[in-house]
Amino acid sequence: MAATITEKIFSRRCGKDISAGDVMMAPIDAAMIHDITGPLAIKNFREMGGTTVFDPAKIIMLFDHQVPADSIPAAENQKFMRDFAAEQGILNYDIQEGVCHQVAVEKGRARPGDIVVGSDSHTCTYGAIGAFSTGIGSTDMGFAMKYGALHFRVPESLKLTTTGKFQHRVGPKDLILAMIGDLTVDGATYKAVEFTGDTISEMSIPGRMTCCNMAIEMGGKAGIVAPDEVTRAYCSGRMDGGWLDLAPDEDASYVLEREYDAADLVPQIAAPHNVDNVGDVTQFEGTPVDQVFIGSCTNGRYEDLAEAAEVLNGRKFSPDIRVIIVPASKTEYLKALRAGLIETFVEAGGIVEAPCCGPCMGGAFGILAPGEVSLSTSNRNFRGRQGSTEAEVYLCSPATAAASAITGKITDPREVA
Amino acid sequence: MAATITEKIFSRRCGKDISAGDVMMAPIDAAMIHDITGPLAIKNFREMGGTTVFDPAKIIMLFDHQVPADSIPAAENQKFMRDFAAEQGILNYDIQEGVCHQVAVEKGRARPGDIVVGSDSHTCTYGAIGAFSTGIGSTDMGFAMKYGALHFRVPESLKLTTTGKFQHRVGPKDLILAMIGDLTVDGATYKAVEFTGDTISEMSIPGRMTCCNMAIEMGGKAGIVAPDEVTRAYCSGRMDGGWLDLAPDEDASYVLEREYDAADLVPQIAAPHNVDNVGDVTQFEGTPVDQVFIGSCTNGRYEDLAEAAEVLNGRKFSPDIRVIIVPASKTEYLKALRAGLIETFVEAGGIVEAPCCGPCMGGAFGILAPGEVSLSTSNRNFRGRQGSTEAEVYLCSPATAAASAITGKITDPREVA
Repeated sequence: MAATITEKIFSRRCGKDISAGDVMMAPIDAAMIHDITGPLAIKNFREMGGTTVFDPAKIIMLFDHQVPADSIPAAENQKFMRDFAAEQGILNYDIQEGVCHQVAVEKGRARPGDIVVGSDSHTCTYGAIGAFSTGIGSTDMGFAMKYGALHFRVPESLKLTTTGKFQHRVGPKDLILAMIGDLTVDGATYKAVEFTGDTISEMSIPGRMTCCNMAIEMGGKAGIVAPDEVTRAYCSGRMDGGWLDLAPDEDASYVLEREYDAADLVPQIAAPHNVDNVGDVTQFEGTPVDQVFIGSCTNGRYEDLAEAAEVLNGRKFSPDIRVIIVPASKTEYLKALRAGLIETFVEAGGIVEAPCCGPCMGGAFGILAPGEVSLSTSNRNFRGRQGSTEAEVYLCSPATAAASAITGKITDPREVA
Repeated sequence: MAATITEKIFSRRCGKDISAGDVMMAPIDAAMIHDITGPLAIKNFREMGGTTVFDPAKIIMLFDHQVPADSIPAAENQKFMRDFAAEQGILNYDIQEGVCHQVAVEKGRARPGDIVVGSDSHTCTYGAIGAFSTGIGSTDMGFAMKYGALHFRVPESLKLTTTGKFQHRVGPKDLILAMIGDLTVDGATYKAVEFTGDTISEMSIPGRMTCCNMAIEMGGKAGIVAPDEVTRAYCSGRMDGGWLDLAPDEDASYVLEREYDAADLVPQIAAPHNVDNVGDVTQFEGTPVDQVFIGSCTNGRYEDLAEAAEVLNGRKFSPDIRVIIVPASKTEYLKALRAGLIETFVEAGGIVEAPCCGPCMGGAFGILAPGEVSLSTSNRNFRGRQGSTEAEVYLCSPATAAASAITGKITDPREVA
């Protein structure tokens, strides 16, 4: 029976042929909780009569949203989770490790072919290495932590094929923004979004993570790339295995297929206040910004920081704005530091914070005042997302963020030498 | 007429002989406001009918307590201050520069012989370079910003003489903690605290800043060291001048004189919940800690970070605790980064945040849950200072903090190889 990647993963894990639309209890290979959603998940686990988690080695626990604790309730939540980790024998990545999705992938806690759930909407990121991964609520998470399984309705899939080479200073973030602009915020609701084509085959895992990360922004249940040699190389040494033949069958069934030409793509901007309010950077050039954020699970990896530094090219950031750079994990931070990027950013007038979610969700720091404008490499620009409901958030690539941080206004990175 | 350092500074700036107890209007050479106290000072300035500040070049404006903005009101306060700076032609050190006191001194904004006021209690720090500097309320600050002068009652002085060489891993922080323990939290109320003796003469400006910074913790109106060759070398290139003969006369009058022997001193701890609750580290050895903070205007300079790294000596921090390191300024951060200290701390499992006040005042991040224990190189351990009123804060030197961060419990740094 012809199958999509998602159907193959569910069939493999359930031991029988599974098709989109099937409803079944499927085993969970990893369940991720963080400092915001974890306490509620644990309470739900307890309320369901949970005493020991199904497998402590399959629980991924991280603190990344409010770290170091920014309030007494946050500190209490983290203490509550540390105590639970100690009681259950769960390895807790504490405040120093970084953003949940980045850490889960780089530590090999999600593997190709796995079914992974996380109580965070951007759990779809792990599709970059060929896992079926999806965000769930805290009630479902309580259940998953107790039983190691969860009820699923296997989603239909979209096939988004991209071919060609990106222009200089155009990349994965521009591609996914263009796709969301094309398909709209509900264009993939409850669907698995398969990214394919030679542009994707040649894309690094960090780039694939950027694309899969934002599948949720078109409503997707998951984003996924079939594991290939790039996946194998990335996974090597991080985990057992690292590659499975999960390529979709040629005659697999899709509810929608679209083709994109990477060579035609120019830098994209998602303007306030929806992620699908997307246009070419040229439409927004000259818009003054107050704050630029480079980081998040979407674009906080070494490659993103290196791209920003390449655009910066020894220049200074505009003294009229704040430039906040937050590597996505300790590993990415150290790579950037050793490559001289941290020094570059600080010398240029930016500030580099320890790995965490940072200003992305407007909780811990980097909050906007009414009337302020943020340009951000993160994934959401909803009204109030980074502070005041009277502030505006524009989304873009690291290259566009860096070019704009130099000038203090939205700038086409192709125009910066 | 025999004069203390303080009497000499006021006499010089007022152009007549001034003695302790005199009340007069004195000129202000610099006035410092930060993101917490600045908005109120500006409002008071306006309410007094202020339209233009007395001299924009003499206003030091910094954002360090809640940076990057950690709430919408904080973001609004910062925006309000940025707008004021632009209107008045004040150079605003924005979120990237660091802690007010460190920046004011390292940028040469406070000079030997100056009278400096700041709307922050640790403004006494600038006495390290021979300024008379003191913390004032926001109403006084509004007046000072309008008129460039302020009413003073010139304080009597204490003379604290320290002789001898510190033992290995004992230093300025241990000395000032011992002095506060000796004199108590009100032992120097409204007095200027003169630090003198060969231990002080041989002490670097960063060490003198640590001592002067905590003069307020014994109630001092100011802490001060007479400018000398060390001062001249530090000030060179940072400011015009850099040295004045402000040495107190031999027969100057002091309300109290004390002598301390640096060689006898062992690492000191200020236990909860008062800064004068001081004892030898040996009394507290083995106390488990949850969080270690190395930073603040007291101990966030390169020398402090280097001391911590020397104690760490390639080891890892205990995985059971959080270790938060926050350089006091961008300059100190870059020095530490270029010396490999940032990499060392992150590799060891700590996190390094961008320069700011950090967990010191329990506002922005590094907040403690009930029952948690912090060991901190900062200056205050009052109940609730770093979060929950049911948490505890111990104060210590960077060496003691680093030794304890390795073991996860209060540890004598002399016992760490």
